[in-house]
Amino acid sequence: MQGSIRIAVDAMGGDHAPQEIVKGAVDAVNTRGDIHVLLIGKEDAVKQELAKYTYSAKQITVIHAQEVIETAEPPVMAIRKKKQSSIVVGMNMVKQQEADAFVSAGSSGAILVGGQVIVGRIKGIERPPLAPLIPTKNGVSLLIDCGANVDARPSHLLQFARMGSIYMEHVVGISHPRVAIVNIGAEEEKGNALVKETFPLLKECKDIHFTGSIEAREIPSGAADVIVCEAFTGNVILKLYEGLSSTLLSVVKKGLLSSLRSKIGALLIKPALKKTMKSFDASAYGGAPLLGLNGLVVKTHGSAKAAEVKNSIIQCVTFKEQDINGKIKNNIINSAEGEK
Amino acid sequence: MQGSIRIAVDAMGGDHAPQEIVKGAVDAVNTRGDIHVLLIGKEDAVKQELAKYTYSAKQITVIHAQEVIETAEPPVMAIRKKKQSSIVVGMNMVKQQEADAFVSAGSSGAILVGGQVIVGRIKGIERPPLAPLIPTKNGVSLLIDCGANVDARPSHLLQFARMGSIYMEHVVGISHPRVAIVNIGAEEEKGNALVKETFPLLKECKDIHFTGSIEAREIPSGAADVIVCEAFTGNVILKLYEGLSSTLLSVVKKGLLSSLRSKIGALLIKPALKKTMKSFDASAYGGAPLLGLNGLVVKTHGSAKAAEVKNSIIQCVTFKEQDINGKIKNNIINSAEGEK
Repeated sequence: MQGSIRIAVDAMGGDHAPQEIVKGAVDAVNTRGDIHVLLIGKEDAVKQELAKYTYSAKQITVIHAQEVIETAEPPVMAIRKKKQSSIVVGMNMVKQQEADAFVSAGSSGAILVGGQVIVGRIKGIERPPLAPLIPTKNGVSLLIDCGANVDARPSHLLQFARMGSIYMEHVVGISHPRVAIVNIGAEEEKGNALVKETFPLLKECKDIHFTGSIEAREIPSGAADVIVCEAFTGNVILKLYEGLSSTLLSVVKKGLLSSLRSKIGALLIKPALKKTMKSFDASAYGGAPLLGLNGLVVKTHGSAKAAEVKNSIIQCVTFKEQDINGKIKNNIINSAEGEK
Repeated sequence: MQGSIRIAVDAMGGDHAPQEIVKGAVDAVNTRGDIHVLLIGKEDAVKQELAKYTYSAKQITVIHAQEVIETAEPPVMAIRKKKQSSIVVGMNMVKQQEADAFVSAGSSGAILVGGQVIVGRIKGIERPPLAPLIPTKNGVSLLIDCGANVDARPSHLLQFARMGSIYMEHVVGISHPRVAIVNIGAEEEKGNALVKETFPLLKECKDIHFTGSIEAREIPSGAADVIVCEAFTGNVILKLYEGLSSTLLSVVKKGLLSSLRSKIGALLIKPALKKTMKSFDASAYGGAPLLGLNGLVVKTHGSAKAAEVKNSIIQCVTFKEQDINGKIKNNIINSAEGEK
């Protein structure tokens, strides 16, 4: 299709593949006419799912891939050996510019390794961070990095801040996004060695709107738009966000069934509660882009259902339309020149 | 008082001092006859508060301390210069064995520094961790370390695991507490450098019941009793716990006021919800002990009100009765002999 955005989708990745992935792809093309989805996976299985739906046939192409990388497989080995896996095939399509983006709910490790090894980094980018949007009281914040680069260096975190700002400004539409670094106190002298070394770099960086340290307590209230941290910390934040939200909700639900009075109350509040909790549901915001690559790679939750897959696909459109990678490239060139 | 446990309490520390601290102390002595509280602070202010309550006069003694260490003061300097501050006076009483424990809601930094410099470490303990209890779906878990030692080494984390196990077994009453290390995946080969180096040490340690890695997602469901981590990570977990719980609750409340139907429902569920949320309220479990010192130092939240102060004081009784420090000393001696 002329002019449309080509998004490769891993039909075999995630807990609900291929059913929910295929449904998400169909929902995406039925929402927007300018998307062309390349569904990668075992042809028979994918076509069998596709047969359940109505959609414009020219918007979806099935690309056969014989192999599947399992979540438990060591990522480096899997990427090297399984050349016919949906992840490797999808990454290669991005590399060859046969696709503008690749979306997968499969093995995080394989996606991170494949992104770096197959798609490759933008020249000048030291490490590509994984950057999901997380829900806050009033909207969303970008958590960058949340799993790609443990034991990162200060210069990596500075690049995360730059790329995160570009993403929040041009994909999410927040002008002059507030950038903060995760710390264990508000004062500049607090923190571990990494934060103490990174803080002055962020403070001096003219391309971003750096507001200082953010304590984890302030993250849910939306105190910053771009939350910069090392991957181990980011992963802890993301996972605790998910775990605590679901535990609190189940504790509340259990409490509501403790008396007849509260049971009746629970019935009355159900619609309002459901709506509220939806605004705090990470899956509503699509997947996490792996920023700084020569192309777009998006990782969605392993537990992703159709709605998240659809949102992840649509998210790629804005990324492409806004030429985020072009903006990242310019930013890196400018920052390198600034250092001369 | 013969045979009673002497607990020094910082009457000047925290957002609600001296009012709530004094009230908490009175509530504690009115709950248990075997406690003697030494209330440290500006005599006039403390006595003025005490005059509001009825209690056994021989259970509370006011110790005058002219100075107060403010939260914003650099801790090392404050401990060195303000010899007449409530924190330094209280720590010295523990050191001189004039008090069995010291409880403060004051400056975390000053308490951590004072604990090490004034009270001093048990011989063989490399770094004393701050170890709060955090609420989970079915009870509580000990988060160790959550703020004392950033950039810790593997040997420190091993000692945290040992001390945490002793605390959970003998103070909280959980036999063979499950010990896990915070990680970003369940597999042994995952993690940052610190976790990878610490994992085999924990695995080989015969004094603890090590169950492997714990992802932050599983913490709220109570998947481990002793959660071992480096202080930066622990602090992020603790603060996010507090921030996310309060944000989610306010989001839910706001949602419940969105329609007449849900407003009526909200009235009906209020008692059940309140009771449920109380079980998830960190303050119900008292303060966080700084483990591994020659005496007991307990840090309560800066925002602590009377109930938390009271619980923190009572917590000291079990600590003393169970001779936790004696058990830690034996454990350290045994582990040192095991290495020979």
